[in-house]
Amino acid sequence: MTMNDYIELIDQKLDEYMPIYYPQKIFKAMKYTVTLPGKRLRPVMCLETCRMFGGNYKDAIPTACAIEMLHSQTLIHDDLPCMDNDDYRRGKLTNHKVFGEAHAVLAGDALLTFAPQLILKHSKNLGAEKLIKILEEYFQAAGAYGVIAGQIVDIESEKLMQSFEFSGKIDIEKSELEKTLEYIHTHKTGDLFKLALRTGAIIADANEEQLNQITEFGQNLGVAFQIADDILDETSTFEQMGKTIGKDKAEGKLTYTSLYGLEKSKEELNKLIDRCFNILEKNNLKSEVFEQILNKIKAC
Amino acid sequence: MTMNDYIELIDQKLDEYMPIYYPQKIFKAMKYTVTLPGKRLRPVMCLETCRMFGGNYKDAIPTACAIEMLHSQTLIHDDLPCMDNDDYRRGKLTNHKVFGEAHAVLAGDALLTFAPQLILKHSKNLGAEKLIKILEEYFQAAGAYGVIAGQIVDIESEKLMQSFEFSGKIDIEKSELEKTLEYIHTHKTGDLFKLALRTGAIIADANEEQLNQITEFGQNLGVAFQIADDILDETSTFEQMGKTIGKDKAEGKLTYTSLYGLEKSKEELNKLIDRCFNILEKNNLKSEVFEQILNKIKAC
Repeated sequence: MTMNDYIELIDQKLDEYMPIYYPQKIFKAMKYTVTLPGKRLRPVMCLETCRMFGGNYKDAIPTACAIEMLHSQTLIHDDLPCMDNDDYRRGKLTNHKVFGEAHAVLAGDALLTFAPQLILKHSKNLGAEKLIKILEEYFQAAGAYGVIAGQIVDIESEKLMQSFEFSGKIDIEKSELEKTLEYIHTHKTGDLFKLALRTGAIIADANEEQLNQITEFGQNLGVAFQIADDILDETSTFEQMGKTIGKDKAEGKLTYTSLYGLEKSKEELNKLIDRCFNILEKNNLKSEVFEQILNKIKAC
Repeated sequence: MTMNDYIELIDQKLDEYMPIYYPQKIFKAMKYTVTLPGKRLRPVMCLETCRMFGGNYKDAIPTACAIEMLHSQTLIHDDLPCMDNDDYRRGKLTNHKVFGEAHAVLAGDALLTFAPQLILKHSKNLGAEKLIKILEEYFQAAGAYGVIAGQIVDIESEKLMQSFEFSGKIDIEKSELEKTLEYIHTHKTGDLFKLALRTGAIIADANEEQLNQITEFGQNLGVAFQIADDILDETSTFEQMGKTIGKDKAEGKLTYTSLYGLEKSKEELNKLIDRCFNILEKNNLKSEVFEQILNKIKAC
């Protein structure tokens, strides 16, 4: 399967898995953000990891789609007025702009349980033990130990950055900011990447050592992806990104580029991508799709 | 176990299951609403159903606590400014009033996956097959087919009521309002009640017939509870209820009392409670705790 084959399959399945039941407005709101055109990076990685470790990628389709739904859930709630207050996402109006705030909150809530329900419904063939393992990964990544921890520290980082800039660097050490930034990236972005990779590997019956390899890979890839996103937030346009650009900087958010500057950020990005290539090579993991993904992130 | 024994046990376990990790503010926000003093009706019903069908109530403790967390999640998000905009709950400030809106949204999100994660973590002894069954019930009740469907139709019912009152009853039939109200009660309240009862029964290895009995019981009890809540919203005080009173009426919400009046609502409540007693008697289900609950709701 090529990257495009995967994306086409995922788009088709996302549509199929989300019929519009009564009350229609909630199902429409859920489906709206999930089916906005996207790179489908997380589900593609899930399917490709399953294939790479000798599994049948078809077994991972419900899990891959569930992870895309979880990702959409984080976007819907992150865009809310009380959070990042964004009007555009993937070039279209954000969920609350189309359906109203109450419906956007509830659509996000609904996706958080719709996604694992989908796994249980469509992956019965994997057996109860494996389903439990997949759900454990899902809950760990989705909750207060995962993306939400990253989002909370991200929100609070605005204050940190301000005290760093205005306090004459006395109250707060740069090393603390660096640690905080690493924490945000690890959880806010890395945890969903790791979820996609680890569940793909679990479905393929990967052993503990292989799980560790792919987790290390995901850790590096997640941070690399976030650095690339921070760089693009400074260097690209609304048309290229489909969302408001330069907002992080304007709001004094803690980002890679704000802390290290553009050049050093690019260096770090290259280093992380090289490390990802090394992990694949060292463990004899062959994947054109992952090579494509790595090169694309590097060329941000 | 008496009602008070159960409540004490649940309060102790809720505290125990929710340590405060980093980032502290999210875990504190989650715990704040979950541990507000409450009647613990849903977890009590889960434990008592398990006992009533011959199971060990201790096996149901994690599931019972998870259901209380799910219930708290619905309260946190329902109270948000973009939903019911309530400042008080159980006599204390609502979550967003204490922690801010962003944290309240994220605390609710986190609880939605923290709760089933807790079941997986602390109920391993039930075996993978039974855990899957419990989670299927949880997802069905928590999501767009369950409480969220009820909440969505509840929000939209304000508009329905207005067109009923101002349109000279031409555009909309009273029977449509009645059906809508039944739908709201069935899902917004009934689905969590049914979740508590059905999971308690599943943990006790109840058979299909017993599951049907307890589901019918929960359906009637859920609607009875909501009617009682609507009555109390008209007849009680802030001090008695711990939340703002008379708001539903002021906002033109579709409630039992607004549609049928106080007297007919009380009649319907009595009928439903009698039906609940009959279901217990007919099936030889003996429970002082459920008798207490039924009598308390009847005497609202």
